[in-house]
Amino acid sequence: KQIVLLPGDGIGSEVIQSARQVLDAITERFNHTFTYHTHDIGGVAIDQQGTPLPQDTVRACEQADAVLLGAVGGPKWDNNPSHLRPEKGLLGIRKSLGLFANLRPIKGFPQLLHSSPLKHEVVDGSDLLIVRELTGGLYFGKPSERSHDGNSVVDTLAYERHEIERIVDNAFKSAQLRRKHLTSVDKANVLESSKLWREVVEEKKADYPDVTVEHQLVDAAAMKLITAPTDFDVIVTENMFGDILSDEASVLTGSLGMLPSASLRDDGVGLYEPVHGSAPDIAGKGVANPLAMILSTAMMLRHSFHLEKEANIVEEAVQQVLQDGYHTGDLDVKNGQLVGTKEMTRRVLEHVT
Amino acid sequence: KQIVLLPGDGIGSEVIQSARQVLDAITERFNHTFTYHTHDIGGVAIDQQGTPLPQDTVRACEQADAVLLGAVGGPKWDNNPSHLRPEKGLLGIRKSLGLFANLRPIKGFPQLLHSSPLKHEVVDGSDLLIVRELTGGLYFGKPSERSHDGNSVVDTLAYERHEIERIVDNAFKSAQLRRKHLTSVDKANVLESSKLWREVVEEKKADYPDVTVEHQLVDAAAMKLITAPTDFDVIVTENMFGDILSDEASVLTGSLGMLPSASLRDDGVGLYEPVHGSAPDIAGKGVANPLAMILSTAMMLRHSFHLEKEANIVEEAVQQVLQDGYHTGDLDVKNGQLVGTKEMTRRVLEHVT
Ligand SMILES: CC(C)[C@H](C(=O)O)[C@@H](O)C(=O)O
Ligand SMILES: CC(C)[C@H](C(=O)O)[C@@H](O)C(=O)O
Repeated sequence: KQIVLLPGDGIGSEVIQSARQVLDAITERFNHTFTYHTHDIGGVAIDQQGTPLPQDTVRACEQADAVLLGAVGGPKWDNNPSHLRPEKGLLGIRKSLGLFANLRPIKGFPQLLHSSPLKHEVVDGSDLLIVRELTGGLYFGKPSERSHDGNSVVDTLAYERHEIERIVDNAFKSAQLRRKHLTSVDKANVLESSKLWREVVEEKKADYPDVTVEHQLVDAAAMKLITAPTDFDVIVTENMFGDILSDEASVLTGSLGMLPSASLRDDGVGLYEPVHGSAPDIAGKGVANPLAMILSTAMMLRHSFHLEKEANIVEEAVQQVLQDGYHTGDLDVKNGQLVGTKEMTRRVLEHVT
Repeated sequence: KQIVLLPGDGIGSEVIQSARQVLDAITERFNHTFTYHTHDIGGVAIDQQGTPLPQDTVRACEQADAVLLGAVGGPKWDNNPSHLRPEKGLLGIRKSLGLFANLRPIKGFPQLLHSSPLKHEVVDGSDLLIVRELTGGLYFGKPSERSHDGNSVVDTLAYERHEIERIVDNAFKSAQLRRKHLTSVDKANVLESSKLWREVVEEKKADYPDVTVEHQLVDAAAMKLITAPTDFDVIVTENMFGDILSDEASVLTGSLGMLPSASLRDDGVGLYEPVHGSAPDIAGKGVANPLAMILSTAMMLRHSFHLEKEANIVEEAVQQVLQDGYHTGDLDVKNGQLVGTKEMTRRVLEHVT
């Protein structure tokens, strides 16, 4: 298996290092052979190669079975012109690899739930998966430009039927592996694209008779995520709605620093990254929380390599260290023990080897 | 002053009736003369005139100084083709009157804050105003259509510079009357329209030197509304982001049934409606909460008629009845007294006359 490592910016290289150690432990224990190739993306790529997404990074990712990405971005590049911004690297690699399905599982950890902004009785038991379409919609539709006189501007929300079909299929399948409830989120009372989206979901229903389906308007979903997060199992939605709702959902359980994500295409190739950002304020200090990156690595083992057992071992190891009270500075654990990135990783490794 | 009443569907006619009584009390006390014209919109207009927005409704609104709208929609029309859906009436009247500025104040009532899904310490003290652009963006951009073969679909997010300028001006002015902090929400790392939006906000800053300005990405704003709602004063954003964020924000304080809204244009003509829907399940039972409609009426007195004193009297009356413990079935007030629509209105009137 060929794995490309894209540490990126800020704490990216520190958490990628932790992920690598966890993978080394897994390969040793189970006799797998993974080969690693490290490449630049984001701000570091801008600094060293003048572009957020160098050609050799794209080529390496195209030949890989999976990509692990740390984080991109930082204040240093915030005022760059838009083609020289770190996130263009992220958008570019998603698009050029065709990673159309962004999976974001959000599940509270009992040790962290008290950090939730929500009342315990509201958030307790929430366990949801957001399936976001990642390579279409407003993010990539053309035209996306300003008029010559600078006085008007346009972006385009475009979808092809097959783009909707494949993400909806993905979401139905995800629901089948979970509690078999799918909420499709759209704005069908306003957008033509949402009407097609809703039609596709209705058509696909017959192929997944064991899944119950509900349609929700995006504004209603934004409310319900807060008032009744436990009502959701799998949510499927288009790119921009998914961006907003998945970030909204990410703060519900009080453990933003713990959330992994996977961006997949149908052949199993995927890019895995923590939901949190590059945290430039703590970069290089050895205090970053590596657990979201490690959990992203578990998702890689499961989704790209079909190593379910190994994925479970990594996930259980993370649960175990939390249960043992270890936590990094971003997490508030009662009577816990504060540790840095290296020590946290070592504790995870103890349960993996 | 000419006021058009659009009761609409569900509980709309009940709460409009309450608003009317409050206005009668105000006119009597202060010797104003308001003239009322009642017209159809939404589902009731579909049933009676075959269209959600009859021409005579538009004409009457065009001649009015202000419009009060109850609510539109209901399951009866949910499966209608899109031009025969109640919300088309709402979208149509906003657009044809040119009501580009949607103002949604969200402030917790001390008596209701315990109903918030958020922890008390998180939500306590929140008091924000969302200024949403209402006649542009994805809601009205062309093309918005499906291809002939049905396999692709497009919606358009379009803005003219002057459309952005006028809503940004409105938001700056609103901020000047409040805590002088403006958060402009966009997705400038992805959308061309957001880049122009951000530029306009930067240009306008100089005209409002007393207001501090912050830019936030829409995904970050969706998080921050939950984790730190008290950090916001005025939020300004484009139509679709505003739809999502204002509904998200509407559940924070636990008093969705209490929230008013105003949709304005620059000459002061406005449409005022409660944020809640038509609640078909309780329609006609005399139990609907009229307070959001009454508070919307206060906004009309302030924004369209510049009757600040009268507006304050109505708002204080609402606060008073809550303080006295009266509440409708949608509100949970400790040791309170449950009342219906009529009795609630009567209690408000006691403090207005
Ligand atoms: C960095 C940004 C372009 C990106 C997005 O909007 O997709 C991020 O918010 C995400 O959700 O991964
Ligand atoms: C009914 C619907 C079209 C409308 C909107 O999206 O603007 C509503 O959600 C609102 O916010 O007033």
